[in-house]
Amino acid sequence: MTALEPSPPAGATALTVDLNADLAEGYGAWTFGCDDDLLSLVTSANVACGFHGGDPSTIRRAVETAVARGVVIGAHVGYPDLQGFGRRNMDIGHQELVDLTVYQLAALDGVTRVAGSRVRYVKPHGALYNRVARDAAQAEAVAEAVASFDNELRVLSLPGSALHRAAHARGLDTLDEVFGDRAYLASGALAPRSTEGSVIHDPDQVAKRVLQMVRHHTVNTLDDTTLDVVPDSVCIHGDSPGAVQLAAAVRHRLEEAGVSVRSPLAPAQPDRRPDAPR
Amino acid sequence: MTALEPSPPAGATALTVDLNADLAEGYGAWTFGCDDDLLSLVTSANVACGFHGGDPSTIRRAVETAVARGVVIGAHVGYPDLQGFGRRNMDIGHQELVDLTVYQLAALDGVTRVAGSRVRYVKPHGALYNRVARDAAQAEAVAEAVASFDNELRVLSLPGSALHRAAHARGLDTLDEVFGDRAYLASGALAPRSTEGSVIHDPDQVAKRVLQMVRHHTVNTLDDTTLDVVPDSVCIHGDSPGAVQLAAAVRHRLEEAGVSVRSPLAPAQPDRRPDAPR
Amino acid sequence: MTALEPSPPAGATALTVDLNADLAEGYGAWTFGCDDDLLSLVTSANVACGFHGGDPSTIRRAVETAVARGVVIGAHVGYPDLQGFGRRNMDIGHQELVDLTVYQLAALDGVTRVAGSRVRYVKPHGALYNRVARDAAQAEAVAEAVASFDNELRVLSLPGSALHRAAHARGLDTLDEVFGDRAYLASGALAPRSTEGSVIHDPDQVAKRVLQMVRHHTVNTLDDTTLDVVPDSVCIHGDSPGAVQLAAAVRHRLEEAGVSVRSPLAPAQPDRRPDAPR
Amino acid sequence: MTALEPSPPAGATALTVDLNADLAEGYGAWTFGCDDDLLSLVTSANVACGFHGGDPSTIRRAVETAVARGVVIGAHVGYPDLQGFGRRNMDIGHQELVDLTVYQLAALDGVTRVAGSRVRYVKPHGALYNRVARDAAQAEAVAEAVASFDNELRVLSLPGSALHRAAHARGLDTLDEVFGDRAYLASGALAPRSTEGSVIHDPDQVAKRVLQMVRHHTVNTLDDTTLDVVPDSVCIHGDSPGAVQLAAAVRHRLEEAGVSVRSPLAPAQPDRRPDAPR
Repeated sequence: MTALEPSPPAGATALTVDLNADLAEGYGAWTFGCDDDLLSLVTSANVACGFHGGDPSTIRRAVETAVARGVVIGAHVGYPDLQGFGRRNMDIGHQELVDLTVYQLAALDGVTRVAGSRVRYVKPHGALYNRVARDAAQAEAVAEAVASFDNELRVLSLPGSALHRAAHARGLDTLDEVFGDRAYLASGALAPRSTEGSVIHDPDQVAKRVLQMVRHHTVNTLDDTTLDVVPDSVCIHGDSPGAVQLAAAVRHRLEEAGVSVRSPLAPAQPDRRPDAPR
Repeated sequence: MTALEPSPPAGATALTVDLNADLAEGYGAWTFGCDDDLLSLVTSANVACGFHGGDPSTIRRAVETAVARGVVIGAHVGYPDLQGFGRRNMDIGHQELVDLTVYQLAALDGVTRVAGSRVRYVKPHGALYNRVARDAAQAEAVAEAVASFDNELRVLSLPGSALHRAAHARGLDTLDEVFGDRAYLASGALAPRSTEGSVIHDPDQVAKRVLQMVRHHTVNTLDDTTLDVVPDSVCIHGDSPGAVQLAAAVRHRLEEAGVSVRSPLAPAQPDRRPDAPR
Repeated sequence: MTALEPSPPAGATALTVDLNADLAEGYGAWTFGCDDDLLSLVTSANVACGFHGGDPSTIRRAVETAVARGVVIGAHVGYPDLQGFGRRNMDIGHQELVDLTVYQLAALDGVTRVAGSRVRYVKPHGALYNRVARDAAQAEAVAEAVASFDNELRVLSLPGSALHRAAHARGLDTLDEVFGDRAYLASGALAPRSTEGSVIHDPDQVAKRVLQMVRHHTVNTLDDTTLDVVPDSVCIHGDSPGAVQLAAAVRHRLEEAGVSVRSPLAPAQPDRRPDAPR
Repeated sequence: MTALEPSPPAGATALTVDLNADLAEGYGAWTFGCDDDLLSLVTSANVACGFHGGDPSTIRRAVETAVARGVVIGAHVGYPDLQGFGRRNMDIGHQELVDLTVYQLAALDGVTRVAGSRVRYVKPHGALYNRVARDAAQAEAVAEAVASFDNELRVLSLPGSALHRAAHARGLDTLDEVFGDRAYLASGALAPRSTEGSVIHDPDQVAKRVLQMVRHHTVNTLDDTTLDVVPDSVCIHGDSPGAVQLAAAVRHRLEEAGVSVRSPLAPAQPDRRPDAPR
């Protein structure tokens, strides 16, 4: 532990943070990312629902593994675009977006109930994630869908996003997400990937940044200011080479510093005892 | 009422039968059948789940109308084949078929719960319907999926089908389906559509056949025998010209003869009062 | 013939115009529009290529009918969005849009060659049509695709559109499209469908407007000015009730007034004699 | 060179053989196999056409690389089943199968022509490959599609397959495919993958088997007989770990033994000089 990361004062409440990753994004014969490895490192799983990725079998396998390991399950809802992996911005009308969000939530929640747990939060995927961070209309459609399906679901997204505002207006609770491997700007936005230094690859540096956010509620920006952040959950990217090593480094560093890595949504009792018969 | 359809003996329990039709089989801009008209005539709606037809908005609209009219909702699960409308036989492995059946059930059930009701039965669609009538392996996969999702769901299929056997082996209850507009053979099978006389188009004749099945538990076969049938539900085809007239004729004739047209799965209390706020 | 549509001056060149309609937009069991009827009335067929609509069999049937009736075939390329029927605006990168446009062109051209003809023009569909009317980047991608596939193909779009500019920059010839059933604004744009009077339903009025555009190269706008137009092709919408009657009325009125209804791209010799063996 | 593989007698014609592999089977964000590496080792590329795998951009990249390296391009047509990767047997009617085969051939041929070459053969993929090896009806549909598209295309499949018979009946030439890494039975069939010893993993052993087939026209079967084979092309599987090493070992062994590795369909002149402008 260095001078930059002093111990918490004696008597302080233990710090906790959640680690989330996108999972079940393969489709049929096509695999994507490292579902199994990541499910031993993260505490929340954003599970694809079949529209940008995730066939029914890939989803079921990821869900079963997550439940067995006590990982909290969220719905990673996306645009209906397999060919573009949900990464292409789409103009979708209000009611259509409500309907396709409810459908995805419903499908994943049902599969998860069969596995003995249930969906506890929603995090939009890819182009939808970026769109609802700033587009009030699409954000409102997603929030309406979530609230109509289950108003105890949390919404995981960027702090200050249009989606969070829409969720609050519907009475939904939200979770603030931060990125350890992405540079921030003073505005609070992520630096575009095309900017030099916008993506941080060194596991040690990522781990330090995450620890600073968790313990001191600040992050140093690319334009040399300091930003205030209060992270509920840290996004771990799963689709880059070295994703698993990076996740392991972050988790190790956090635990070494006395931070408790767990989801605020984890049930007091595990959903199902590991030895329980199905 | 004619000599062929005598009144029930005094003191007899009132006869009842269910009418079911396939619904929500459009997709995006493509419509299919006459959802709205049929939902005023049938008592059970086999709602497409998105794999052979049924985009999220088409499904939601059909479900909302069904709930508003007190029509019982079933999951019309199908092969993943939009281009072939689920009418092309597919070899799908056991676990894959379990998984894609659970996914479809889950999606429709969640959408239906948002509308204030829930899925109460399962009827396979098209090529899957025909396959699980005789293929024990695929039948077993569908039964496993249904039982794992909700073992109070009923399975609606041909009397004596492999699917009914598999369902019973899993402890699931089944409903026997008959066809008023299709000719039967002495074997109990439907006469192939290529056979002359295999499809009956005259609404009056269809209505008479249904009434005979409901009241006398018999049907005259194409090969001039009489077959015993105890129908729980009569299939009303919705995709032919004149489908609505035919459904209306059948329903009218049944009610005129004192048969109560309703689903055995209809809840004692409607799922939601028509004026209830959402 | 009324005072509004005087005879052409003696010795004038015969007037000609092309009528185009969108075809083959069904998919599997789902039909759309009235392909067969329209193919007796229009002179150019915008044939769907499989991405927004058009399964291989629907495409092949429309192409065979078009070839048999001497209707010129164009590629109606669209966004990859079956669920949204290509009507949802999508952000697609340059190279991806080039590639998916070439693929669609290639597929339709090959199917058309088997039927004895070939693709002679390209008209984007739905949201792509609207996007490339004003977005130079997507317009450039479509023009690059067309030029790389066959630089003798024409591009059919709105006069003055970004797509026409991009096509000209690539050395491609263009065809100017007008709408008889849509109101124009003084700017040259179509009045939004939400504006009262923006869609004209009366076949007679539509026919008169088309005749005025063809003979006098003008159209009266919704905001009471007169716009100059030199139509190469008139779009006939095929998906509205009464589409066939409207097309018939327009064609009849044009021919009655001495206008020759044919495509400028029709080969001097038919592609294949009707009685030719395949 | 060992005693098992004697030099060809002096004055003998040089032996040649073709190596083929399945390529472009990724889809959007999902990659599959090692397209780039394999295209340096094989002489024929079975390029996916978009129905079981292969989005337009993945196809175009593989085609451009193949053309640049002088690799002959074939159409790897498959069932319309992205979720099942074309590996699930489907019952498809005659005309539908003709149509979807022509569509795939057309799409790939057009993309290939833009890249400066053309499709020279057809090899069905996955479940369709297995089905048309023994099912005369589906084989006839594929042969009809190929002949109607271009009767100079060759058909690459199992020696003695139903597809080869159907192709010959249509006047199409065929190419006999063998597998170096799969065990044969005395019947000429491949041993099922579930049988012990059915898949050969050792690159050296695979290379020896291929050399024996090429030089001596025989292969030792799993049931200890010797089968006669006259291979036109050897299939190199690209989706297993070690696929590239195996392909490299086979190619090296063949060339070391004096076998010329090339496609019988390679044009006398390369399709396009590497430095040619597009």
